[in-house]
Amino acid sequence: MQPKEFLMIPGPTPVPDTVLETIARDPLGHRTKEFSKVLMEVTTSLKQLAECEGDLLTLTSSGTGAMEAAIANTVSPGDKVLSCVCGVFGERWVKIAQAFGASVDKLTAEPGEQISVDALRDRLQQDKDKSIKVVTMTHNETSTGVLNDLAQLALAVREHGALCVVDAVTSYGAVPIAFTNWGVDVMVAGSQKALMLPPGLAVVMMSDRAWDAQSRSKSPKFYFDLAKYRKSLSEETTPFTPNVSYVVGLKASLDMLKQEGYRAVYARHDRMKRALRAGVTGMGLKLFVKDEAAASPTITSILPPSSISVDNLRRSMKERFNIRIADGQDALKGKIFRIGHMGYVFERDILMTLAALEASLTELGYKCPAGIGVGSALAVLSLTAQPT
Amino acid sequence: MQPKEFLMIPGPTPVPDTVLETIARDPLGHRTKEFSKVLMEVTTSLKQLAECEGDLLTLTSSGTGAMEAAIANTVSPGDKVLSCVCGVFGERWVKIAQAFGASVDKLTAEPGEQISVDALRDRLQQDKDKSIKVVTMTHNETSTGVLNDLAQLALAVREHGALCVVDAVTSYGAVPIAFTNWGVDVMVAGSQKALMLPPGLAVVMMSDRAWDAQSRSKSPKFYFDLAKYRKSLSEETTPFTPNVSYVVGLKASLDMLKQEGYRAVYARHDRMKRALRAGVTGMGLKLFVKDEAAASPTITSILPPSSISVDNLRRSMKERFNIRIADGQDALKGKIFRIGHMGYVFERDILMTLAALEASLTELGYKCPAGIGVGSALAVLSLTAQPT
Repeated sequence: MQPKEFLMIPGPTPVPDTVLETIARDPLGHRTKEFSKVLMEVTTSLKQLAECEGDLLTLTSSGTGAMEAAIANTVSPGDKVLSCVCGVFGERWVKIAQAFGASVDKLTAEPGEQISVDALRDRLQQDKDKSIKVVTMTHNETSTGVLNDLAQLALAVREHGALCVVDAVTSYGAVPIAFTNWGVDVMVAGSQKALMLPPGLAVVMMSDRAWDAQSRSKSPKFYFDLAKYRKSLSEETTPFTPNVSYVVGLKASLDMLKQEGYRAVYARHDRMKRALRAGVTGMGLKLFVKDEAAASPTITSILPPSSISVDNLRRSMKERFNIRIADGQDALKGKIFRIGHMGYVFERDILMTLAALEASLTELGYKCPAGIGVGSALAVLSLTAQPT
Repeated sequence: MQPKEFLMIPGPTPVPDTVLETIARDPLGHRTKEFSKVLMEVTTSLKQLAECEGDLLTLTSSGTGAMEAAIANTVSPGDKVLSCVCGVFGERWVKIAQAFGASVDKLTAEPGEQISVDALRDRLQQDKDKSIKVVTMTHNETSTGVLNDLAQLALAVREHGALCVVDAVTSYGAVPIAFTNWGVDVMVAGSQKALMLPPGLAVVMMSDRAWDAQSRSKSPKFYFDLAKYRKSLSEETTPFTPNVSYVVGLKASLDMLKQEGYRAVYARHDRMKRALRAGVTGMGLKLFVKDEAAASPTITSILPPSSISVDNLRRSMKERFNIRIADGQDALKGKIFRIGHMGYVFERDILMTLAALEASLTELGYKCPAGIGVGSALAVLSLTAQPT
């Protein structure tokens, strides 16, 4: 009997059984008091999770839909946008903003490196006439496994006065975020990452400054018109039929996060990252993100040994162990492989993945001391204080 | 023990247990061969169901998102659009087209009546210089319970040459549709109606003529850029992370429709409509859609007795029997109540609803001979030939 597939990819991620049971119930009517109650509870919890004192709206779409909502509600044709790009998802902001008629400049970082806070501050200080209306950025760049320093980047934007628009799809729920204190204006996330649901639901947060821009924005929008969602939420409902089942499922997953404690959840992700990095370097592999402080707590990018192709390694992991890991994207395809560790994933899953990785590499002709990957990870874990 | 709530509303609708089991499985990775296989099978079946020889694309959104996609991909700012409006959802096309900068004229029908094919033909014949680019319409108007004569309306549009853009959200899968033969250009639907899934997935069909318009359309779009979906589908995938679980669920529900047989499914919906209409008129209530040929096979709108409020009737149905029925929308709120009968609903559910309705009306002081509602429905059902 083949055990069910285990996803160690950067989303979709494993969904807890209790959440799966919840979304397998017959859907609630979306205009009922029962649904309104769940929607408001979920909204409150989602705001707590991001320390958001602004508005938080749930959309029935992928995370990219929420990114489009962020742009369509803050940008008008001709507006100047500065996009911080350190990978595929940073580039997605560029494409969306251009699709909506913005004039986009880019501040780029080399793949595997963070966006430089100093470079951003310099660029914004050169904008004497404050022509830049919006700065976009990616908190955790899924394509490279880099976590940007959002607090400092947002501060630099705040000093300038532009809106700070953030993709937190693969960080929200796994990494501490202080939306309001850090001065973020718009932040988007999706259900299929650390929120532990299947894909199909997205979240947008809006500051007061973002609403000011929203009221002036001239981009056409209807399904993603956030003012409609805000008005409906004030009546404890949504403007269009939402994915009611996933909202109910989100209640279940948010309750699990609360029960573990947000700080403990963040500490768990940090431990998984450090254990995995120690394990793969112990096996003699190279990490794509060299600086541990810049490395993502949810996605680790690794260079394969020069003698082994990413395709073969992924195939071996899948065929032998039914563990799915990810290839690189676009220019990094075949150059790196990526292991996702966000949401319903624990230390033991990291150890299992390292063990399977060592076995697969060995099968493909790579040589390293038996057990060194898991051993290196265990050493890190035993050195790690338990969360309080 | 209270039995679980039964939704007799115009969506969300009851979801079969086999579908619920399917969507309760751990999500597939969206870039896997397993998912591609299901996506392609689902796409083929969905096309069969609408007799569509064009392209069919699945979107992760509500039905309204698919309506926005229809407009954003065929309309450019300043384009002239003629919207056929016989209720709230006809009006939704107007709002979306206006949001995208179209100049919208309306052809209206009284609530409870169909759009007149002759009136549409006349209006289009007056458009000598073919300035109307797009005609929007609603196949089944959810707010009133009217089924429009789509074949004839589409023919009138075809004679003129504009694009025929259709909302089939509450007809697709319950009423015969011949997308290609009828000359429809764009058609949208949602998962939470006769397709028997929870809300969260939508469908758009495109004719060759629609793609011509798509290539010229200047409306900003990214998440709803259908050219991206077509390109990805040619590679057996989707441009953004889709709701993989609902695509897998759709495979299960489409298999059920196939097993029953599409013609049998359509005949079942027609029988439910006629039995329900006979039952409520048997009880002395008035139907909002007088003409049976114009009445929807999926939604029946009924006037309450003058002495009983819609609120009280709905509350009684909910509290006593845990059956949820719908109020009227907007101007019809409190004036009619609506019973949905689409998807995973059968004759026995109509009989149950009629029995509960009679009990609730009686409890609220209404007088009619005991059992007359169910009796009248049974008479219709026994007169009805079984589908071949």
